[in-house]
Amino acid sequence: MQFAARTARMKRNAVRELLKVTANPRIISFAGGLPAPELFPLDEIADAFAQVMSRHGAHAFQYRETEGIADLRDWIAAAATRPGFRVQRRHVAIVSGAQQALDLLGRILIDPGDTIAVENPTYLALLSAWNAYDARFQPVPSDADGLLVDQLDSILPPTTKLFYLTPNFQNPQGTTLSAARRDTLVRFAQERGIALIEDDPYGALRYEGNPSPSLLELDAISGPSVRGEDGPGNVIHVGTFSKILVPGLRVGWVIAAEPVIERLVQAKQSADLHTSSLGQHLVAELLMRGLLDRQIPKLCAAYRDRRNAMLTAMAKHLPTEVHWTRPAGGMFLLATLPPFMNVQTLLAESLRREVAFVPGEEFHLGGQGKQTIRLNFSNANPDLIEEGIRRLGEAMRSI
Amino acid sequence: MQFAARTARMKRNAVRELLKVTANPRIISFAGGLPAPELFPLDEIADAFAQVMSRHGAHAFQYRETEGIADLRDWIAAAATRPGFRVQRRHVAIVSGAQQALDLLGRILIDPGDTIAVENPTYLALLSAWNAYDARFQPVPSDADGLLVDQLDSILPPTTKLFYLTPNFQNPQGTTLSAARRDTLVRFAQERGIALIEDDPYGALRYEGNPSPSLLELDAISGPSVRGEDGPGNVIHVGTFSKILVPGLRVGWVIAAEPVIERLVQAKQSADLHTSSLGQHLVAELLMRGLLDRQIPKLCAAYRDRRNAMLTAMAKHLPTEVHWTRPAGGMFLLATLPPFMNVQTLLAESLRREVAFVPGEEFHLGGQGKQTIRLNFSNANPDLIEEGIRRLGEAMRSI
Repeated sequence: MQFAARTARMKRNAVRELLKVTANPRIISFAGGLPAPELFPLDEIADAFAQVMSRHGAHAFQYRETEGIADLRDWIAAAATRPGFRVQRRHVAIVSGAQQALDLLGRILIDPGDTIAVENPTYLALLSAWNAYDARFQPVPSDADGLLVDQLDSILPPTTKLFYLTPNFQNPQGTTLSAARRDTLVRFAQERGIALIEDDPYGALRYEGNPSPSLLELDAISGPSVRGEDGPGNVIHVGTFSKILVPGLRVGWVIAAEPVIERLVQAKQSADLHTSSLGQHLVAELLMRGLLDRQIPKLCAAYRDRRNAMLTAMAKHLPTEVHWTRPAGGMFLLATLPPFMNVQTLLAESLRREVAFVPGEEFHLGGQGKQTIRLNFSNANPDLIEEGIRRLGEAMRSI
Repeated sequence: MQFAARTARMKRNAVRELLKVTANPRIISFAGGLPAPELFPLDEIADAFAQVMSRHGAHAFQYRETEGIADLRDWIAAAATRPGFRVQRRHVAIVSGAQQALDLLGRILIDPGDTIAVENPTYLALLSAWNAYDARFQPVPSDADGLLVDQLDSILPPTTKLFYLTPNFQNPQGTTLSAARRDTLVRFAQERGIALIEDDPYGALRYEGNPSPSLLELDAISGPSVRGEDGPGNVIHVGTFSKILVPGLRVGWVIAAEPVIERLVQAKQSADLHTSSLGQHLVAELLMRGLLDRQIPKLCAAYRDRRNAMLTAMAKHLPTEVHWTRPAGGMFLLATLPPFMNVQTLLAESLRREVAFVPGEEFHLGGQGKQTIRLNFSNANPDLIEEGIRRLGEAMRSI
């Protein structure tokens, strides 16, 4: 069997592969990006299932429109609408998780060799998905306030087509793009005609401070009126229910201008016809019941405790040469090790102590990040986090 | 926003677009490929859901392995195993419906410009999916016994890489590849080193006669022993639960040699991480309960009646110049109109009488099939079929 040339650019994502190791229940895993299963709203899901069966019956198991079911698109449109910025059903497509959104956006937007700007570091699975479309990535450095926007003009070549970023509680760093930088970025992208892809899986998981407006909203409100409509403009917004509800239903969404949605839906039709009808109906039913108003505060309270437990344990147990980010939300932080600590050796020593993390290098471009490790704090409870970080400190001192 | 060049090759699939028209409940639709919703096993699904909740709980809503859940892969492997041909878990990947299998297979196997052999006519959505990978299609003509295998050697250029076909109750013709021709095709493909993609959504829906062995099985048993293992060889088999269970869960599978599964899983990881955890668990639970042993005979009895109703009504109501195939299973037949009947005019006249069908031309290559229409007989009950065909005959006489 002869494989296509593009398969040579594919590789399994290290995080997904590590998930297999961490299926061992004895392991304290800071590796994956798993939400806490004990917080899944199982009773509400069971009620919603009964309601979907009685209200929709066979319809919830039949073929459906590629765009997604109307109730769900309408809910998402309404939730994204702001004063002066109206999102409508036609601006929304349902996808099989945010990962599918990224893959399909790559498919409809990237020609081989196109320059795509990304934060450095950035989301690992974006890199692997768009590698298949032969994208050329242009990294932009970031600090604790996110992307260094004052470097954009000098770093990005004139041919830059797209900018992919996660403005809120970025994976892997946990950092957030400041409000002032958002303005600068949106204006820069408008002037240069660069489309912005705003990936926002974690935005609702904020543990302190106030949210900044989305790039979608900033762009639509400040965008040139020549666009002649009041919906999304230059920004493509990607959302998911994976982190705020459950990941296993694989339901996400894209909000964008109508021509983008139109192409995305064409691509999705070839990719998988449509997202699970049952999954969409379950999510829609849960949303109509106002579940998120109950679930998000519960998640924020629990994850805030876990983040605090991790930061406290790190200060207590890790060598002083190690530094780390302090995320105001999300699920991850990034630690930087001193030059004498080899990350692969540390991983082996940690796994021996039944603690897992992900080396940060794969999230980086340009050979950077060799001394970084990504730690997830959403999947283990505070006691396990304390114990896991204690063992991690022990592993660090052993090498 | 500047779209990728490949989007110029995308278009919406006519069948999926017609589905929107036929959402009007007054329309008698012979257009889509919808299974009969009144036959969906809703009570069994509800029981299975309760069982999945109590047995797997949060696990059924968490991120899972890209390959699919082990129970489901094992069941599929066992069901495909034959004397002398053992399918194992590692030969099986779960996908989000057969459409995703086709898309991912295109992604891992097709380089731009590759020659892909297909039956003429063939499955419309395969053409649209693989157009995006810039495949060059080489049509092979077929008759009532399927593909004309004696023409393969002269028609297919030496560079032919893949052969895609639906051996059982093909969409759109409803025809089936005879046992003798299967042997010839499998041997030919082995000699020429052409991989066979056997798409088999309808195989279990047989209303008369005896099944032939799958290409997967024929190839594995007759394949050169140099392969050194007893699993799948040169054939990639694509299956789905859409037609025998329900389509809305979007669960399908691929059976193939391990290197193919490995690449497919890499591609799937980028495409959507994994198929819905709940969907997979529900299907697995239904399979363990032996649902298919009850459901398939029920479907066959109902669809046999519908096929018979359609064939009887066609003989009674359609002009004698119209001819059609007589499928022994599946969901479709293809009718050929006399040269003086324009298909688009007929479609307009039919829709005016609230009857829908799909023009056959889009399933054909090389400008053929202009006088054909595809009729689906699984979605309407026998009385509606009789009435719909009566109106179709009226529409034919009106033009």
